[in-house]
Amino acid sequence: MTNGKISMTVIRRLPKYHRYLKDLLDKGINRISSKELSEIIGFTASQIRQDLNNFGGFGQQGYGYNVEDLFNEIGLILGLSRPYKTVIIGAGNLGQALANYDFEVHGFQLVGMYDVDENLIGRKIKGIEIKPSNRLVEDCVIHNVDIAYLCTNRESAQNVANALTKCGVRAIWNFTPVDLKISDESVIVEDVHLIDSLLTISYFLKDR
Amino acid sequence: MTNGKISMTVIRRLPKYHRYLKDLLDKGINRISSKELSEIIGFTASQIRQDLNNFGGFGQQGYGYNVEDLFNEIGLILGLSRPYKTVIIGAGNLGQALANYDFEVHGFQLVGMYDVDENLIGRKIKGIEIKPSNRLVEDCVIHNVDIAYLCTNRESAQNVANALTKCGVRAIWNFTPVDLKISDESVIVEDVHLIDSLLTISYFLKDR
Repeated sequence: MTNGKISMTVIRRLPKYHRYLKDLLDKGINRISSKELSEIIGFTASQIRQDLNNFGGFGQQGYGYNVEDLFNEIGLILGLSRPYKTVIIGAGNLGQALANYDFEVHGFQLVGMYDVDENLIGRKIKGIEIKPSNRLVEDCVIHNVDIAYLCTNRESAQNVANALTKCGVRAIWNFTPVDLKISDESVIVEDVHLIDSLLTISYFLKDR
Repeated sequence: MTNGKISMTVIRRLPKYHRYLKDLLDKGINRISSKELSEIIGFTASQIRQDLNNFGGFGQQGYGYNVEDLFNEIGLILGLSRPYKTVIIGAGNLGQALANYDFEVHGFQLVGMYDVDENLIGRKIKGIEIKPSNRLVEDCVIHNVDIAYLCTNRESAQNVANALTKCGVRAIWNFTPVDLKISDESVIVEDVHLIDSLLTISYFLKDR
């Protein structure tokens, strides 16, 4: 389906299409033109046609898009045709917040939470017991974990990342302020650097 | 200092420079060439020179950059020469996680936390008492709040955003999965759409 040359900018827009199409489906809307979609999603109609043409184009001249087909196709492109096993390392407030998100409706199944804090170990979040961190590697191998949500402190981040890559975890969702050095280039790292996001706000505020 | 035409791509790289320069300062390193900076930060040396030239250029041929000067200058560019007053709306796990980050070292001073949940109201996080949400508007006016961290559920997000813009809040850091519609174009909205970030991971995982 994809030609392997899709730009990051387009890829990063796909989840937004997916969210809006889900909303339309939930409202019982079956068909939408690129112009109507443009009005609700905030991209231009030509941008939308161009984006979707990257993946073969789903629209029909004079009809527009079938919402359910487009939603399903974008889900396939986004890799949502299979479940992913996930773990959370660092079960403090942020880890618990992530555990409580509804990521499982998209197929991201939480199979373990880990921490070094004795006060947290043994507690259950959404039915998942927080285990000591020294159980992480063994569990990742047993469960064949795909994605690790990294919510440790700055000091532990790189060491935990090293352990994760050694036990076959294929992606790290990195919430620490550390830019991880990963020797295995096939491991995907997606950073959520909160402070970088906040500093973008102050950049724009400063001149106002 | 800025010419007003800096691209978003460059702006989004500035916090990373700021983080790395802070690390260098903490290690007692006073001077660095663009080549050395390139090796640790992962941008090319020419990219670095080009980025910093956007803001007047701070390097000296044959000397490199003075780390402290560059750190301070980028801090100024990022608007860190003044403090910002912030509030958190939604004091669940995510709101509490944000309260516990060390954003105040950069001048982001938390002055209030709000929730509708009776079980949370009255608790103190980092010395800040969680107050009922109906106190939000009055407090924002009294404290002249700059930035609101929006951590409510999906259903409340737009209404809270409307209230915030009416009481003079200048920026919304939006952690809800909603794309907010803000009538006042001077209000800055910075989205942290976690699900979009996670779906980027599954996109890249799918072909592996």
